[in-house]
Amino acid sequence: MTQKFLYSRENRKEDTIISLGNLRIGQDLVFMAGPCSVEDNLDLMISIAKKVKDSGAKVFRAGAFKPRSSPYSFQGLGERGLKILNKVREETGLLIITEVMDTRDVDIVSKYSDIIQIGARNMQNFSLLKEVGKQNKPVLLKRGLSATLDEFLMSAEYIMKEGNTNVILCERGIRTFVDYTRNTLDLSIVPALKEKTHLPIVIDPSHATGYRSYVKSMSLASVAAGCDGLLLEVHINPDKAASDSKQTIDPEVFENIVNKSLSIKKIL
Amino acid sequence: MTQKFLYSRENRKEDTIISLGNLRIGQDLVFMAGPCSVEDNLDLMISIAKKVKDSGAKVFRAGAFKPRSSPYSFQGLGERGLKILNKVREETGLLIITEVMDTRDVDIVSKYSDIIQIGARNMQNFSLLKEVGKQNKPVLLKRGLSATLDEFLMSAEYIMKEGNTNVILCERGIRTFVDYTRNTLDLSIVPALKEKTHLPIVIDPSHATGYRSYVKSMSLASVAAGCDGLLLEVHINPDKAASDSKQTIDPEVFENIVNKSLSIKKIL
Amino acid sequence: MTQKFLYSRENRKEDTIISLGNLRIGQDLVFMAGPCSVEDNLDLMISIAKKVKDSGAKVFRAGAFKPRSSPYSFQGLGERGLKILNKVREETGLLIITEVMDTRDVDIVSKYSDIIQIGARNMQNFSLLKEVGKQNKPVLLKRGLSATLDEFLMSAEYIMKEGNTNVILCERGIRTFVDYTRNTLDLSIVPALKEKTHLPIVIDPSHATGYRSYVKSMSLASVAAGCDGLLLEVHINPDKAASDSKQTIDPEVFENIVNKSLSIKKIL
Amino acid sequence: MTQKFLYSRENRKEDTIISLGNLRIGQDLVFMAGPCSVEDNLDLMISIAKKVKDSGAKVFRAGAFKPRSSPYSFQGLGERGLKILNKVREETGLLIITEVMDTRDVDIVSKYSDIIQIGARNMQNFSLLKEVGKQNKPVLLKRGLSATLDEFLMSAEYIMKEGNTNVILCERGIRTFVDYTRNTLDLSIVPALKEKTHLPIVIDPSHATGYRSYVKSMSLASVAAGCDGLLLEVHINPDKAASDSKQTIDPEVFENIVNKSLSIKKIL
Repeated sequence: MTQKFLYSRENRKEDTIISLGNLRIGQDLVFMAGPCSVEDNLDLMISIAKKVKDSGAKVFRAGAFKPRSSPYSFQGLGERGLKILNKVREETGLLIITEVMDTRDVDIVSKYSDIIQIGARNMQNFSLLKEVGKQNKPVLLKRGLSATLDEFLMSAEYIMKEGNTNVILCERGIRTFVDYTRNTLDLSIVPALKEKTHLPIVIDPSHATGYRSYVKSMSLASVAAGCDGLLLEVHINPDKAASDSKQTIDPEVFENIVNKSLSIKKIL
Repeated sequence: MTQKFLYSRENRKEDTIISLGNLRIGQDLVFMAGPCSVEDNLDLMISIAKKVKDSGAKVFRAGAFKPRSSPYSFQGLGERGLKILNKVREETGLLIITEVMDTRDVDIVSKYSDIIQIGARNMQNFSLLKEVGKQNKPVLLKRGLSATLDEFLMSAEYIMKEGNTNVILCERGIRTFVDYTRNTLDLSIVPALKEKTHLPIVIDPSHATGYRSYVKSMSLASVAAGCDGLLLEVHINPDKAASDSKQTIDPEVFENIVNKSLSIKKIL
Repeated sequence: MTQKFLYSRENRKEDTIISLGNLRIGQDLVFMAGPCSVEDNLDLMISIAKKVKDSGAKVFRAGAFKPRSSPYSFQGLGERGLKILNKVREETGLLIITEVMDTRDVDIVSKYSDIIQIGARNMQNFSLLKEVGKQNKPVLLKRGLSATLDEFLMSAEYIMKEGNTNVILCERGIRTFVDYTRNTLDLSIVPALKEKTHLPIVIDPSHATGYRSYVKSMSLASVAAGCDGLLLEVHINPDKAASDSKQTIDPEVFENIVNKSLSIKKIL
Repeated sequence: MTQKFLYSRENRKEDTIISLGNLRIGQDLVFMAGPCSVEDNLDLMISIAKKVKDSGAKVFRAGAFKPRSSPYSFQGLGERGLKILNKVREETGLLIITEVMDTRDVDIVSKYSDIIQIGARNMQNFSLLKEVGKQNKPVLLKRGLSATLDEFLMSAEYIMKEGNTNVILCERGIRTFVDYTRNTLDLSIVPALKEKTHLPIVIDPSHATGYRSYVKSMSLASVAAGCDGLLLEVHINPDKAASDSKQTIDPEVFENIVNKSLSIKKIL
């Protein structure tokens, strides 16, 4: 194929840098942190946000719309969650990233967030990709559990083709036979993507590993592999998180990850 | 967990039988056949439909909304395709199955089809599952490429929980390291599902194998494994099909599959 | 590559047929059955052998050398097991298939068996492949858990290159993310191999599925897919088998499988 | 299971440290480097060895017995290769690691090497594991392409049970659907193994990725993940290496990897 895809290095040699306030995604090492779900406790959300901000996070992550395997699991607070996130932004100055799952919710999620997340299960929900491509907030696109490199990049292309070229790619583990982690973190995708695309790459070791005790070492490995940022589940009281408790770290571990990550980044 | 899920044998011992006209899905061996995409040629569509009907098909399959990895590939005829399908039904008396990809299209797809298909990429598009659960046409749910048995059944549960218990499960291959087929047809899921659920199970050997020359043997194997039906890509001129040409069989092969499948079914 | 490999259809168009007594492997549908391990009870072994012979088995299978993941599991009876197998042959007239795991044991296993088995874990034990290629008993080569089609055929080539062209290929499941079966039976390899090679193909649904209740349907599916035979774990008292008890069927189920398999074979 | 396996942290809390001369494997970060195969050119082998020694390697790696998928590929120099390795040791003072593939070759490989390697294809060649467990040189055990954590550790147990407790575990990639690397480097196994076992862990990014341009970033990621050493394919003229040319790096890249690895190790 001779076509130059919008995502490709052939189309654009220099790295894409996404500017949000004084943050430069694709240039600075960015830390996105927060609880799995927005919880119905504004004070708690603000406390977590302040903690991660103090350690170096620039973006607060938490889900208002939650994709859950079971229809009987907590499905998120929906619009009320978005409003809580809005107050966290006002109170802390952190940027907000949160997931959208339905084409009909793109407007409202776009209104309340600074970065829109497309989850792994929706990586090939092409209607949704087109819709977030039509609004102007940057989009963090998570790799599907069994997505090839080409499929991943082609999903980014769906967004870019609609006019929104601010796409952040996110590796969060693939499905393999391995059973000691929730998924298998495929870090080799970092140099592979860096060759093929100018888009920034963020790693999510929380979902990839599924276990708290592996998050720190995989975070540092991600930075050493050359990624542009980390997306981490952090909670003041991990064992009481409303979801994904087993893989959530506490602010002390997060601070340690940030400090060591920055030191490694300098060596590279 | 002591909860009895709607899909489970514990909740309902007898097989679910879905009646559509004089067809009994879950009881009769059902053949769903047709081209990958609805093509902009009504006469051709009707010709294919008549051919597959003559051989024993009761349901005509063709996509009006096409999930394609690349945004530059043919995306389907959309509503115009639905109207063509409607005419095929009027002309041939075949039932129509076609895919929906967006919550906003559920009403119109439901209006023009007899069975709504949820594609593999949308198996965990929970908004879409809820929406098709709210309308009353039966839903054929395809297994995602990396879905576990529990995830597959839980996606069926999403639909059933909204009130629509007429769900047909469809295996169409999983993603593995194997490279001589497009995906790996996982036939062991047939007895595994039969133990756990009362829902009917249909196999799609066309998408699973990706190669025409493997479709017949995998169709017969599917029937021998105990499935309730086959979903097959058939075209009068397979090499000229608008999509999925490589895995599309011609009406002669289809007829042969139907005949041998019925003979095998009698032995079981 | 223009080289015509010994295994390839380009090198030899007609199917290889291996004659052992009045058995024609590659032409007749062959049933190989017996317990996982040779057990230290000659009468029991003879009883099982007579049962499976009455149902239509021509080959008795049982392991004297057992590859076990743990060094603390039963490792097989070794040479004593081979002598028991020899008596089973004398008493019943069944042919014997048994596994070899060490180059140093090839002579003795070759002496006591009619078909030598190379297990999945040793599919790329190239020293062992060369050694069984130098003796004259037919070799049943099991596909490794993560072997590609080319690797599988190249391992057959290692044997054939040494002069022994009587190789039987055996699919016994691949390793995937699927967790409701021990491995994933990859039946599409049957038509894929039939295109590429003239060698006979046998399926082992016992090891592939790991569960007794799936063995019958997967056996029939294998025959419908076009295989040349089945390798099955059968025991008079499956729950008391010395190993692999969970996937072992009883003689009644075996007889049912044989009868239905022969009926399906006629239809093809 | 209440048994305390020899490999387990429950059996032995402190890390195993293997002393070879002044090298402490399990304590110092160790670099093992050299060409894929021993080539029939002593001067070239010595030149490569001196180069990697100058950059910080303590162990020279090269295969005399080569496991190759095809019987028509270069199978290694055999005993002559071992003698070349012996001269490299005499000339440079580097330790030698090389692979053994046959139980009958264990004595001679043990005689000429300082560390014996068991390749991925032989991870469950239990006869071979027992045999290297009976000699006294340390054993580097590579993980099989589809080995679970438990199977990997149980293979180490086979060696340890025979009396040889100096086992080094080596991750070299697993087989997944991913196609942009030869295999998928599973770095999460580093923290997972560190929890379960006291044995040292070495990573082989050359075989895992299969592409030269990914080796540096994956080496640094491995160190950041907490491994005890790297096994790397290095050649003065990578494009002319007798095997595995595509994944072989040159001495300049190797030196850069060593330097940055040591800096990262200090941060941890």
